[in-house]
Amino acid sequence: MNLFGFARKKHPPKTAQMAKDRLQILLAHERSSSGAAEADYLPMLQRDIVAAIRKHVPIGDKDVEVRMERGDQMSSLEINIELPAASKAG
Amino acid sequence: MNLFGFARKKHPPKTAQMAKDRLQILLAHERSSSGAAEADYLPMLQRDIVAAIRKHVPIGDKDVEVRMERGDQMSSLEINIELPAASKAG
Repeated sequence: MNLFGFARKKHPPKTAQMAKDRLQILLAHERSSSGAAEADYLPMLQRDIVAAIRKHVPIGDKDVEVRMERGDQMSSLEINIELPAASKAG
Repeated sequence: MNLFGFARKKHPPKTAQMAKDRLQILLAHERSSSGAAEADYLPMLQRDIVAAIRKHVPIGDKDVEVRMERGDQMSSLEINIELPAASKAG
């Protein structure tokens, strides 16, 4: 489910799944020239971003869902994370 | 301009701004309970994500544009980065 529709509306409708805190991260890398040799940052960034989140909040592997789409000029990465509710930032 | 419309279509239309590589990162933090005491991860994650990208590619402060929206139950962060074209990943 794409959370970003919520971010745009002032008063997001309540949803049943709101029992847990959730973090959604979308990355898109648009390359000016196509071709495999072009640097593809997303796999490295995925690892670093999840590690950055783990510095602040305890998340298990089962709480992290990753989807990646790789095109000739555009790659995108979606990371969905269920966070422990009402935890204080580290 | 929201890159993520590109990610969904199989053959994204060519745009004049494609001269440079671009990286767009969207984060949304949906909190199950409202209130300021609730942990707000986005400012910390913003710093860590830009630092993670800098490990792999040289980006100047002027290449990074950040927008943050903070609601009662939903905060969102948008980071737009212009990357040096055709650089190999470190």
